[in-house]
Amino acid sequence: MAPLNQHFRILNTDPESAARCGLLSTPHGQVLTPAFMPVGTQGTVKSLTPDTVKALGAEMILCNTYHLYLRPGHQLIASLGGLHSFMNWGGPILTDSGGFQVYSLGKLRKITPEGAIFQSHIDGSRHRLTPELAIEIQEALGSDIMMCLDECTPYPATFSEAEASLSLTLSWAERSRKARADSSPQALYGIVQGGMYPDLRKRAVEAIAAMNFDGCALGGVSVGEPKALMEQIVAETTPLLPADRPHYLMGVGTPEDIVKAVDCGIDLFDCVMPTRCARHGLLFTNTEKVVIKNARYRKDNGPLDSECDCYTCRNFSRAYLRHLYVAGEILAMTLNTLHNIRYYMRLMEQIRDAIGCGQYAAFKSRFLKDRQRVET
Amino acid sequence: MAPLNQHFRILNTDPESAARCGLLSTPHGQVLTPAFMPVGTQGTVKSLTPDTVKALGAEMILCNTYHLYLRPGHQLIASLGGLHSFMNWGGPILTDSGGFQVYSLGKLRKITPEGAIFQSHIDGSRHRLTPELAIEIQEALGSDIMMCLDECTPYPATFSEAEASLSLTLSWAERSRKARADSSPQALYGIVQGGMYPDLRKRAVEAIAAMNFDGCALGGVSVGEPKALMEQIVAETTPLLPADRPHYLMGVGTPEDIVKAVDCGIDLFDCVMPTRCARHGLLFTNTEKVVIKNARYRKDNGPLDSECDCYTCRNFSRAYLRHLYVAGEILAMTLNTLHNIRYYMRLMEQIRDAIGCGQYAAFKSRFLKDRQRVET
Repeated sequence: MAPLNQHFRILNTDPESAARCGLLSTPHGQVLTPAFMPVGTQGTVKSLTPDTVKALGAEMILCNTYHLYLRPGHQLIASLGGLHSFMNWGGPILTDSGGFQVYSLGKLRKITPEGAIFQSHIDGSRHRLTPELAIEIQEALGSDIMMCLDECTPYPATFSEAEASLSLTLSWAERSRKARADSSPQALYGIVQGGMYPDLRKRAVEAIAAMNFDGCALGGVSVGEPKALMEQIVAETTPLLPADRPHYLMGVGTPEDIVKAVDCGIDLFDCVMPTRCARHGLLFTNTEKVVIKNARYRKDNGPLDSECDCYTCRNFSRAYLRHLYVAGEILAMTLNTLHNIRYYMRLMEQIRDAIGCGQYAAFKSRFLKDRQRVET
Repeated sequence: MAPLNQHFRILNTDPESAARCGLLSTPHGQVLTPAFMPVGTQGTVKSLTPDTVKALGAEMILCNTYHLYLRPGHQLIASLGGLHSFMNWGGPILTDSGGFQVYSLGKLRKITPEGAIFQSHIDGSRHRLTPELAIEIQEALGSDIMMCLDECTPYPATFSEAEASLSLTLSWAERSRKARADSSPQALYGIVQGGMYPDLRKRAVEAIAAMNFDGCALGGVSVGEPKALMEQIVAETTPLLPADRPHYLMGVGTPEDIVKAVDCGIDLFDCVMPTRCARHGLLFTNTEKVVIKNARYRKDNGPLDSECDCYTCRNFSRAYLRHLYVAGEILAMTLNTLHNIRYYMRLMEQIRDAIGCGQYAAFKSRFLKDRQRVET
């Protein structure tokens, strides 16, 4: 593995917490952290053009190896010049390994030491995803940050189940490291598993740190465990991660989750929440929980979120957004997604600003209080 | 009815045909004609933001009275400041009368001298649409151009059926004229029916012309009759229309239909074709008929249409557009619609340019020859 070369630089640390601002450098540009990556599952952040995604403030997006491997195929994408060119996204891309999607297939998959055997959700065809293939696919896609194939430990799991699962993940991490092309400009991150057992998490961190990956991710959280347990695992595990590498909390989460995890020293996030919620008409604001189909918005001529600077909030009323949603119009998906992504991007800007001026604790406490009012 | 006040000015006429360029003035701005109006059925041109619609070159759009009356309701829209404000479209809007949609309901509607009784396609509720109500709805919406309620004569129809239907349409036209508020800044167009009978069409034109509407529309074409018959009706009827009023051919049509109808003196068009085709992956170019899901585009790294200046053609490959379509991504709808609308807008620009420099006959013959190659 090539030595770590300026992949990540810490810019500020918060005096009262583990929160930090950093600058991530990739072949396709730099990313200020803490950062949230909108999810572009099939090579598109659902319902938005890449120009719009960029204009909303997103610097890096996540794409799914599993989906792109099955359709249209990584070799096809490689032959067309790689994923950036294919989807016309000029900024950094992180690809997951496909592990989580395969895990989510439930009965359609089987895990062996060699890899994961699964059936396509599209046509039922059989596939075998190994750590080596996951790297091959991600190298073909040409993402900026690749992830090691891991086994997502389910919740609940006994200690010995979680321990066996972790062993597999660690052996796959080592194989991923070896499979990666020496000359690759693509970063590779290891994933810390270990279920809900602090001892296993500690062991995982030590093993992953020893493999000298470009970054470290926490996986296997937000898989059905109680919120408090997730918070505990993040709070206990993050401080153990190598401080000079980016810390990525996979698949998390709500605005509250993000604000709390930043406090523990997390730098990177991804989640389908803003995009998926948008398509279901659930819209984020700091003052109100908006379920846009509700009759109360029928005659509401105000903007969705008077604090928001997005195209949706500047140009349309809640009444119109409700009408579009109820009428099943495609534009509802676009305008809602646009707002929710902008909400997340503004949140990350506020987080970075707060850390930058040493006010993260105050920001966090105010934000969580505001959001509590929203939820109740 | 208020006297005609600068609603329409002819700028150029073609020396060899009845084609003409004009300038239509409305309370929300001017429109160069011949013009094509993208259809915004439910208060949105499906899958596009109004900013995008404008950027594509559309100056005026059409919205459907029937749909907006049923959902969200014209009174609601009026209470929120009217349709322009509701959908954030600052340019001119033409509203149809709802007649064609009611006609399309088939067995769910019944026509009486008083008006049309129909059941909502949404919830089955019963409604009665009269000429007076159609005006009331359109005045509440605040469109720039209103249409009289008419009965769309079906095809085929016997002479006496078509004659009876025309009588009804003419009596409704007179009632519409009277129902319109004297002080209204909204224009009102009459509709010429008469089925496929030149005598009836002539009679219709005379009656409609005598009512001194701001513009005259040809209705009841493109309702299932052979293409040649439609062309004949348009070619025979358009020259009879008052030359100083805009001539609007309702619900037409293909690029070829438009080019031929302009030759007869038609100024305004609307059709769901570019938007609906786009959502079905049928894309317009002057060199090739593109059905984007076809396997032949799987590895095609070229633009959809190398002649086109739209965002889709400048930024994405056919392979990517195919992938989005096959994967069922919302962005497919947006990018496809964007291209098809731009194709129509460029066509109208080319038509106006050709008329402006007295070359319409040459343009028409070249265009139809090109398109013939595309279709075969």
